Amino acid sequence: MKIYLAGPDVFLPDALEVGRRKVEICARHGLAGLYPLDNVVDRFAADASLQIFKANEAMMDHADAIIANLTPFRGPGADAGTVYELGYMAGRGKLCLGYSNDPSLYADRVRNFTAVETLGDRLVDPEGLTVEDFGRSDNLMMIHALELHGGPLVLPRASLEDIWHDLTAFELCVAMAARRLGSAI
Amino acid sequence: MKIYLAGPDVFLPDALEVGRRKVEICARHGLAGLYPLDNVVDRFAADASLQIFKANEAMMDHADAIIANLTPFRGPGADAGTVYELGYMAGRGKLCLGYSNDPSLYADRVRNFTAVETLGDRLVDPEGLTVEDFGRSDNLMMIHALELHGGPLVLPRASLEDIWHDLTAFELCVAMAARRLGSAI
Repeated sequence: MKIYLAGPDVFLPDALEVGRRKVEICARHGLAGLYPLDNVVDRFAADASLQIFKANEAMMDHADAIIANLTPFRGPGADAGTVYELGYMAGRGKLCLGYSNDPSLYADRVRNFTAVETLGDRLVDPEGLTVEDFGRSDNLMMIHALELHGGPLVLPRASLEDIWHDLTAFELCVAMAARRLGSAI
Repeated sequence: MKIYLAGPDVFLPDALEVGRRKVEICARHGLAGLYPLDNVVDRFAADASLQIFKANEAMMDHADAIIANLTPFRGPGADAGTVYELGYMAGRGKLCLGYSNDPSLYADRVRNFTAVETLGDRLVDPEGLTVEDFGRSDNLMMIHALELHGGPLVLPRASLEDIWHDLTAFELCVAMAARRLGSAI
């Protein structure tokens, strides 16, 4: 069974090495990991971004499941590209699993990111926009999408030393996928 | 035809009024706008966030198309909940349209958000993570999803006074939806 490995991991300086480790973990559990950077795309071609999109979409269409790395990325929430892919796979009826290597609550991360105040019964940011405050790790759409289309978001018990390279929560997702999908590649 | 009206509009202090205006614009074009806050959910129930998720997903399943407001939200990129919904609708094969009320480029917004430097052939943030720099308005997954599953992202020609209440780009999307879907409600 094939698992699409979504996440901002592709933006890491050692993106290829992280992908190699993720694919290896999948193989140990009898699953085939599909990592976006396995697509061969010329990053300097005029239509590079379109080529990457098409290659990623084709990989998703071939996969039976997604494991989304929802670790907060450059701001209080998950990487938008990864979130798009999670939604796409949920829409296609594929098995949706995900993890975040940051166990903190979304509202607390927004508090660290910008000034937040309580206004009536709403928590608001300086622009007056409501801060979602349901005691969840991120936007409710992703949290409940995982619960209803796969399995609950996997989180570490405590803060991690290296949120970009610790693959413990990722491996728990892989084990869950192997149980759910059967493990024949 | 029914259009799901996705966006961080639901976080505005006057979220209901903005939704009313959006639904009215849809009606003028012969379309039925479905606005997430039309769902009646008790925000203080223990399972409020799950109820909201289920109501939004049901609305999306009933809709023929999505118009996603991808205006940058509390950081350099679009709202994660909206991005999830765009992915979900693309996965379901629905017509995908979207707009952003900020015409700037993603990489430029990241530059305003954090220190960015060029390292070899990559633009990187202080954590060493690559900044996507394809001359696009946001993450390539959303940009090309719109192009391939609906119509290109609609942007204003210049900066707007009030990015949260200007509905010009939104109305262009509605007109596009009416042409593509036919306008019988």
